[in-house]
Amino acid sequence: MSDIKHGPVVPTPGALGVLRPLPAGAVRLTPGGLLGGWQARTVAATLPHCVASLEARGNLDNLRRVNGDTDAGFRGYWFADTDVHKTLEAAFWSGAQPAFAAEVAALLEKAQDADGYLNSYYQDPERRDRQWAELHFSHEMYTAGHLIQAAVAAARSAPGDAVAQQVVSVARRFADLLVQRYGDSPQTDGHPEVETALAELYRVTGHRPYLDLAARLLDNRGHGTLGEGRFGAAYFQDHLPLRETAEVTGHVVRQLYLLAGAVDVAVETRDEALLATVEQLWDSALDSRTYLTGGQGSRHRDEAYGDAYELPPDRAYAETCAAIASFQLAWRLLLATGRAGYADEMERVLHNAIAAGTAVDGTAFFYSTPLQRRTGHDSGDENAPGHRLDWYDCACCPPNLARLMASLHTYAATGDDSGLQLHLYGAGEFASGARRVEVATRYPWDEQITVTVTGTTADPWRLSLRVPAWCTDVRLTVNGTPAPARAQGGYLRLHRIWHPGDEVVLTLAMPARLVAAHPRVDAVRGAAALVRGPIVYCLEHADMPAGGTLFEDWELDATAPVAVAHHGSGLAPVTLRVGVRARTAQDRPLYRDLRTGGSTAATATVSAIPYFLWANREPGPMRVWIPLAAQED
Amino acid sequence: MSDIKHGPVVPTPGALGVLRPLPAGAVRLTPGGLLGGWQARTVAATLPHCVASLEARGNLDNLRRVNGDTDAGFRGYWFADTDVHKTLEAAFWSGAQPAFAAEVAALLEKAQDADGYLNSYYQDPERRDRQWAELHFSHEMYTAGHLIQAAVAAARSAPGDAVAQQVVSVARRFADLLVQRYGDSPQTDGHPEVETALAELYRVTGHRPYLDLAARLLDNRGHGTLGEGRFGAAYFQDHLPLRETAEVTGHVVRQLYLLAGAVDVAVETRDEALLATVEQLWDSALDSRTYLTGGQGSRHRDEAYGDAYELPPDRAYAETCAAIASFQLAWRLLLATGRAGYADEMERVLHNAIAAGTAVDGTAFFYSTPLQRRTGHDSGDENAPGHRLDWYDCACCPPNLARLMASLHTYAATGDDSGLQLHLYGAGEFASGARRVEVATRYPWDEQITVTVTGTTADPWRLSLRVPAWCTDVRLTVNGTPAPARAQGGYLRLHRIWHPGDEVVLTLAMPARLVAAHPRVDAVRGAAALVRGPIVYCLEHADMPAGGTLFEDWELDATAPVAVAHHGSGLAPVTLRVGVRARTAQDRPLYRDLRTGGSTAATATVSAIPYFLWANREPGPMRVWIPLAAQED
Repeated sequence: MSDIKHGPVVPTPGALGVLRPLPAGAVRLTPGGLLGGWQARTVAATLPHCVASLEARGNLDNLRRVNGDTDAGFRGYWFADTDVHKTLEAAFWSGAQPAFAAEVAALLEKAQDADGYLNSYYQDPERRDRQWAELHFSHEMYTAGHLIQAAVAAARSAPGDAVAQQVVSVARRFADLLVQRYGDSPQTDGHPEVETALAELYRVTGHRPYLDLAARLLDNRGHGTLGEGRFGAAYFQDHLPLRETAEVTGHVVRQLYLLAGAVDVAVETRDEALLATVEQLWDSALDSRTYLTGGQGSRHRDEAYGDAYELPPDRAYAETCAAIASFQLAWRLLLATGRAGYADEMERVLHNAIAAGTAVDGTAFFYSTPLQRRTGHDSGDENAPGHRLDWYDCACCPPNLARLMASLHTYAATGDDSGLQLHLYGAGEFASGARRVEVATRYPWDEQITVTVTGTTADPWRLSLRVPAWCTDVRLTVNGTPAPARAQGGYLRLHRIWHPGDEVVLTLAMPARLVAAHPRVDAVRGAAALVRGPIVYCLEHADMPAGGTLFEDWELDATAPVAVAHHGSGLAPVTLRVGVRARTAQDRPLYRDLRTGGSTAATATVSAIPYFLWANREPGPMRVWIPLAAQED
Repeated sequence: MSDIKHGPVVPTPGALGVLRPLPAGAVRLTPGGLLGGWQARTVAATLPHCVASLEARGNLDNLRRVNGDTDAGFRGYWFADTDVHKTLEAAFWSGAQPAFAAEVAALLEKAQDADGYLNSYYQDPERRDRQWAELHFSHEMYTAGHLIQAAVAAARSAPGDAVAQQVVSVARRFADLLVQRYGDSPQTDGHPEVETALAELYRVTGHRPYLDLAARLLDNRGHGTLGEGRFGAAYFQDHLPLRETAEVTGHVVRQLYLLAGAVDVAVETRDEALLATVEQLWDSALDSRTYLTGGQGSRHRDEAYGDAYELPPDRAYAETCAAIASFQLAWRLLLATGRAGYADEMERVLHNAIAAGTAVDGTAFFYSTPLQRRTGHDSGDENAPGHRLDWYDCACCPPNLARLMASLHTYAATGDDSGLQLHLYGAGEFASGARRVEVATRYPWDEQITVTVTGTTADPWRLSLRVPAWCTDVRLTVNGTPAPARAQGGYLRLHRIWHPGDEVVLTLAMPARLVAAHPRVDAVRGAAALVRGPIVYCLEHADMPAGGTLFEDWELDATAPVAVAHHGSGLAPVTLRVGVRARTAQDRPLYRDLRTGGSTAATATVSAIPYFLWANREPGPMRVWIPLAAQED
């Protein structure tokens, strides 16, 4: 193993790929920036909260009971170990919580069976005969996958550390068992995840059978071995072989984890056809099944995609884990292809659907991130209560947020032989070898990003700055002199001999915009959303005028200008001031003859806040898509 | 027991109530009319299909295995007996399938335990210890309720018949067991149904403990005895006592069956406060949680109501059983209050959501009746495949349709001391004692309803004719002479001395109408529906122009006149001819800057068909709510 620290996804030198991740030690986000602030909050609040919750909720006891160290009964879902593994992964990425990591490593090592098996649910004596016997349901490989990902984080973050090596050893023993059992099997797991984990473990260890098994598991899928389950084979993505599919379907997290594994396998095996398939599936998600926030998943019942253009804001399931999976997949596709669209989507989903997952204090979370919450909301779904909870019975999302945010710095920039590429704009430092820059910005609140060269080579090199597709007004200065700001393929590419102290100032104009959905999106017809830069805004009850007007009766006056308001304190650094009108509203009848126009009972100017900051005040209604007021005659 | 045959719901003479049902023998629907045609088709096709399916799907074998007459394993859901009971009820209402009725009666009698218990799932030796131990889940009282309702049908339809008496005896033994076990218990069943059944059995038998138990079970609900289950206590309507609730919530069929039982108890105990509570809950459903088709239930996940105004057409669950339950509840409220709105809703839900449940051949059924099906629909729900199936694993709906349609004639008219009231217009004969009319009409295809007096008393009496709320142009002639057509409380009330041969002609003008939803219904903003009389129309793929235009890209030209086209043959007797425009549609991007207007790629005039007739041709997209084309500048 290398002793250079890295983050998630480090393709081998021979893999397909255009961009290369930077070593984790060569990148740093400043806590004062938005991205760095999220990362710092994760370390300071979310990760300790996860550690405490794993103790309180019995996840650690589940492992202790395997070891005979407690008489407590098994608690939680059958894949409860994954919450431990994901938190452990976050601990390694961040370098925080060493005592927790050491304790868990010891627990895992002790709990592991002689053959490498490790799953506290199926190690219960009463369930041992069901091991490997119900793969459609058991999440056994999925659980192994999260253990392996923790080990990958251990190997990349703390290569010389004894605790890290302990975790890697445990994970390898389990991975070896998987290779032994399934290396020549037609079976696979009902929940993808182990594919990407095995490919990453191959990257860390160089042990080819891990990659081969990942590839085999991908090909095993789509032949109906998982049965119909409760929701049909497509729920598992087992209805068709991946290579024959053209559209995303079924359970969203399963679909996206599967595609992440497919990219890892495709690049490591140089399988361009498989990569192209994933790109097509990605397009099918982005073109017709993704919310404005980057969230995916339109249906509660099976946590699934729906029909093309089926994107209800109120019933958006938009699981936080799906948003994280989308980000992880986009990162893989960005590395593989260098296409800016993937970085655009990383930005969108990060700043909206993912960011909304966590409360401002870092210790409460959304499982589901809907785009609308009505007055008197009737949840009907324990995973979508309409406000953030400090934990969930199915607690996949909080530790998933922790592991993503703990490694966030590694996703902001890449390097290649020709230079350094900046994808996500956050204050911090980024280096590709001797080429080193410092980024100063209050992005996305401010439009200006200042990049100062702090280290360089004598040769000319290319500094690439992403210009988001939402931006139509880009300005650039180099050392104070205006320079042409023509993006090529989504990046400004500045090729020159750089000197320490050279300063590039990129200005991405961020007027408030009114956005509409494709007319096929029935659920938000006649409504608009407010967007500024990468940030989607929403109206929340707390910002509406006092008085008797029902939240749902306020409509957007699209003819009024939208003002951008900067704030030095308060919940939101930037709000949008918009004109709204209240309809004269009678409660009934529910259906009436079609008429045009409408009359106005009240008008007001109100503040819209960033969507990701909603539900940090008293619970109440919220909406991203605001009905457009009829234009008065 | 009386030997006068009756239909469902016959309050005792001392009960609260304004209108009285007519004896079943005094009402008849003509098979040539729409209502009579549905009833005739039920007897000729649906009922035999149900009988055959119960054999094929194992429901009858489930009873035979209790009797030791088969070694077959139990098949279907744990409440599979209810499909037998509902089909038996339909057989009694219709007088058809006597061999089936006799066989089932014998099976039930033999299967019944000595103490009266009868439930083929829980009589399995391996499950006997779970009897009455899991009421939140077991549907045991629910299943008993459907047995009792079959017995009520037996008693009312075939009072002297030995088979009927056999069924009544079995049901009474089970009801007596319920009284013995739960007459003094705080418990209740997770699925309401037995309340209305017990109240009806009281009406048939005069045995007061049945009514007392029904009342007790109502009061036992709402104290959390059922637990949270998977979907929370509100799913079971166990979150609050019924008398303290103000809005419908939770599982729709459970809610509506509960309310039907509450009306039965309220009228028999003369509990006006309880009746008022039900009326308020009804209003909460109708004002904000009912589809244009009369369907109820916005969520797939828990088959539940949603928030107020949450009415997505594509994800409408709108279970057929919920529509039937709404009809049954409305009938009870109509009898109790005489308010025309309840009859209006009976008409709407019958002609749209309920009628859509059955294919034109009578042997395929919808479980869920959505208002939109997209191109390339991805179901994700075995109960909502997007086309009718000949049976379902959970087959509650087909025999529920059979029992409703078999008794349909009893819902069309009522009597009281002052005369005869016509509520649903179908060709047929209706009598209240000596007061007798014949109705000739092609309603709802034609506007004209001819009522001829065929029997009368010497005294003056009042003939009441419902004027639907949708109708704003009513004309009336009596014996050829125009008469004032002023409805009072939703009825034209014609009080006079009638003579045989007197002819009243009511004309309810039925122009095609464009209907919009309340602005709070986000899901259909910017769209209109086509309605004529009580019939909701839809666009279906088969009627759209050939060519490459995606079904979803057609929009309604609301400025074009809508023509009413009558047809002598074909699927629909009346279609609406409407102007549509195809948008110039590009597949991407999914989100774009808000612009007004739009350009038109094609125009056409197409036929809209009655919603209830959709999905009788090749499966494909359909929509009730049609996007309104932007008006061109």
